[in-house]
Amino acid sequence: MKTTPHQVRPQGIDAATFSRALADFGAVLGADQVLTSTAHLRPYTKIMMAVETEAHRPSAVLLATTVEQVQAVVSICNRYRIPLWPISTGRNFGYGSAAPGERGQVVLDLRRMNRILEIDPELCTALVEPGVTYQQLYDHLQEHERPLMLSFSAPSAIAGPVGNTLDRGVGYTPYGEHFLMQCGMEVVLANGEVLRTGMGGVEGDRAWQVFKWGYGPTLDGLFTQSNYGICTKMGFWLMPRPPVIKPFSIRYADDTDIADIVELLRPLRIAQVIPNAVVIAGTLWEAGGCNLRRSDYLDTPGSTPRAVIEQIRRDHGLGAWNVYAALYGTPEQVEVNWRIVTEAVERNGRGTLITAEEAGQTQPFQYRAELMSGIPNLQEFGLYNWRGGGGSMWFAPVSQARGSECGKQVELATTVLEHHGFDYVGEFIVGWRDMHHVIDLLYDRSDPEEMRRAHDCFATLLDVFEAEGYAVYRVNTAFQERVAQSYGPVKREVERTLKRALDPNGILAPGRCGIRG
Amino acid sequence: MKTTPHQVRPQGIDAATFSRALADFGAVLGADQVLTSTAHLRPYTKIMMAVETEAHRPSAVLLATTVEQVQAVVSICNRYRIPLWPISTGRNFGYGSAAPGERGQVVLDLRRMNRILEIDPELCTALVEPGVTYQQLYDHLQEHERPLMLSFSAPSAIAGPVGNTLDRGVGYTPYGEHFLMQCGMEVVLANGEVLRTGMGGVEGDRAWQVFKWGYGPTLDGLFTQSNYGICTKMGFWLMPRPPVIKPFSIRYADDTDIADIVELLRPLRIAQVIPNAVVIAGTLWEAGGCNLRRSDYLDTPGSTPRAVIEQIRRDHGLGAWNVYAALYGTPEQVEVNWRIVTEAVERNGRGTLITAEEAGQTQPFQYRAELMSGIPNLQEFGLYNWRGGGGSMWFAPVSQARGSECGKQVELATTVLEHHGFDYVGEFIVGWRDMHHVIDLLYDRSDPEEMRRAHDCFATLLDVFEAEGYAVYRVNTAFQERVAQSYGPVKREVERTLKRALDPNGILAPGRCGIRG
Repeated sequence: MKTTPHQVRPQGIDAATFSRALADFGAVLGADQVLTSTAHLRPYTKIMMAVETEAHRPSAVLLATTVEQVQAVVSICNRYRIPLWPISTGRNFGYGSAAPGERGQVVLDLRRMNRILEIDPELCTALVEPGVTYQQLYDHLQEHERPLMLSFSAPSAIAGPVGNTLDRGVGYTPYGEHFLMQCGMEVVLANGEVLRTGMGGVEGDRAWQVFKWGYGPTLDGLFTQSNYGICTKMGFWLMPRPPVIKPFSIRYADDTDIADIVELLRPLRIAQVIPNAVVIAGTLWEAGGCNLRRSDYLDTPGSTPRAVIEQIRRDHGLGAWNVYAALYGTPEQVEVNWRIVTEAVERNGRGTLITAEEAGQTQPFQYRAELMSGIPNLQEFGLYNWRGGGGSMWFAPVSQARGSECGKQVELATTVLEHHGFDYVGEFIVGWRDMHHVIDLLYDRSDPEEMRRAHDCFATLLDVFEAEGYAVYRVNTAFQERVAQSYGPVKREVERTLKRALDPNGILAPGRCGIRG
Repeated sequence: MKTTPHQVRPQGIDAATFSRALADFGAVLGADQVLTSTAHLRPYTKIMMAVETEAHRPSAVLLATTVEQVQAVVSICNRYRIPLWPISTGRNFGYGSAAPGERGQVVLDLRRMNRILEIDPELCTALVEPGVTYQQLYDHLQEHERPLMLSFSAPSAIAGPVGNTLDRGVGYTPYGEHFLMQCGMEVVLANGEVLRTGMGGVEGDRAWQVFKWGYGPTLDGLFTQSNYGICTKMGFWLMPRPPVIKPFSIRYADDTDIADIVELLRPLRIAQVIPNAVVIAGTLWEAGGCNLRRSDYLDTPGSTPRAVIEQIRRDHGLGAWNVYAALYGTPEQVEVNWRIVTEAVERNGRGTLITAEEAGQTQPFQYRAELMSGIPNLQEFGLYNWRGGGGSMWFAPVSQARGSECGKQVELATTVLEHHGFDYVGEFIVGWRDMHHVIDLLYDRSDPEEMRRAHDCFATLLDVFEAEGYAVYRVNTAFQERVAQSYGPVKREVERTLKRALDPNGILAPGRCGIRG
């Protein structure tokens, strides 16, 4: 297919209709808030997935600043059947960046809807618009000396809570399961109505950000990982900043230690001795996190040999597995829990405890400690330089927090990745009873052969894991249809029924998470 | 209206059609599992709400034991347009008991679907059928010596997790927000398909009870407080039983202390120093909890005079407000947190701390301690004897966990209740940032005048609270339509749209939570 970008249009929409729609968008938003030039669209075409850029090229980008504008845009989309792809800060990187899920969709960029509407320092709640970033929130809390702490994903500074939570992303603090900590949404529906979830529909209500459920069915989950509405406000809970935060690491020497680590951590995590979303990071993730490049060690293609990985461990004091956790509380609370942790690690006998004092200012300890303490940074972008070339796809299967299961997943993934000439760059994020096993499939997107190979590898990972009963919790837009299939035909039919009911013209992000009418 | 019970039929269904439907139900379930006699239907007509029994009289009751039977029943209901009212253990008491929401609906009683399908002692999860009771689960855990603890509502022994969680009920342990601890559902839809939420749709999956969300929209919330499906299996999390559970009480002398108490508790609760769903109980709730009867003090009708309430306090060592909370953990963890609590209470200076040792075997401390420790009991049924006569309607407005708000709600409620000649029998259940303010409107249902007055009182409570921006989180079936209105027209229209999409014939519990197609 050879089209010049400015000719891109939504599927099935002729040029005259699209022109009219653009003119109508312009009348609502201001003509300069409707972007169509190649130069303006460039940031919305930079994908990291192993598919052609053309497959995710938008036809236009709309910049809205008010709820009323979003309602008017939706109304225009209904009139002309224009598919609309809403983004908040557009920092979804290895899950799809700021590009639309399908070629020709119009991106609705909400990053300029960026007001922090409320922070309640007593109830420890926030209400924000979609464009608010974690850095902006952090600066706000600092400036107003609020004793509150954020939880965020690693691209913390530039990403934001609305986008991350709607994608059901996770962070590294005790509030790391972000959707669990979400409370109250405002959503523009496909019919232009504004829905407030939970207590938000009650006139004069003051409990919207403190009580999640409301009365009748609780609808918030419906608007995550879906295309049933456009979230224009979101409430969530903030952790009170404790007097002491004690980050620490446990280093393990052997690849096979993973099963042992998980068995050690699970009871401590479930009993909340360790309250945060602990990370168990493999060597090469750590290498990326401390700015190492594969080219420092190798100039041959393919997967990185075991001997080189071991050399990296020796050179940089990294384990095969590196646990990052933290204790939070008063000095006395932390002291008691620290004793429980140290005794458990000693009893287990395989890991080496490393305190913040011992780690000093070194990476990756430093940025991990910051993430666990609610301090945004961008250190983890070092991953993208490990192999270079701008290719990244997150493969994120769910696992029980059980050693045997996690060990099996590491073996499965490593085998598939190495077979395709890639590296296992992975970590586990420890939920309460579950694991997000997050693997970054890093590849050189500027090399067409390697890109094809990465695509094959990712597809194989999905197949191999599915055959063992494992499915991913989130995926890039190129594989959304494939992953939806893993969750079975009944769920898909329900999703489709809901889509037809809530968005009969199919204008909101058709295809997102595999859902269309 | 004067009909004999056996003539009751679903609305709009003629006698011949209903007979055919009953015969078809019998063919699927066995004729003896289709109940229609007055004697058999009696337990399903015992309501506690202030409306005529006839308004909630079922036409028949079906007893199913398998998912396939539930599917077949749904298919028959679609064929004849029979409205079906599913119940699990049928112990919803002041919220509607086992009776259908509307006269003539056929009750689908699932109490014989009562298998405990799985308890995982390592991952601390459970998977059960709708008829499983908390007592049954408790006995199972004891028998198998599982170091796990349940969280339940006060009618613990005879109620069960499926019904309680679907109604978004709460308990008194750190896992007291039950829907937050739910993980994975199986639901028979109105079209007869079986949906598994979360990870449940993935073939061969083992993460259904550990990871709540799955991929794509998270649908569990859709099936709580609604009528979009019939839950036939539910997973949930169990707390590992800690080495030490230290229940305690704090007694406050003055009615106006409530604001102070809430301000004292909020930071301790949000920081998880006190991890459980704390209770702040008013005097008369306590009186019921220790088996006092109003007739022990008074033989005049109307609200109980302040002087008598004060006499009861003196006679039974009760406060105006009585806080029940507990610490959980190792001896060292509990010791540290106990110090924080005692210092906070001392600094505040108004409350008197009471330990388990000081309280001894007395009520209401004893049963409260049991509820916080996961030991089922039925002591709180004493409430129903306070005034006697079998009338009970829970009025349960949500509040911020803020002293001024809670104080205001107590005043509002007391004024309305006393104006109608009833008592404020109330408690707050402290969530993280929210309060379930739970008030039991107790009245003599055998006295027609008092029943009418109770109805007026409840309606007035809803109006007065709504005017101040407060709405309830749950309500009995007589007021479900009224409460749905409080949550605004947009939510209602979404609920109706979903109902038409998921249940086009409107066979599942029409009217439940105000939802119909």
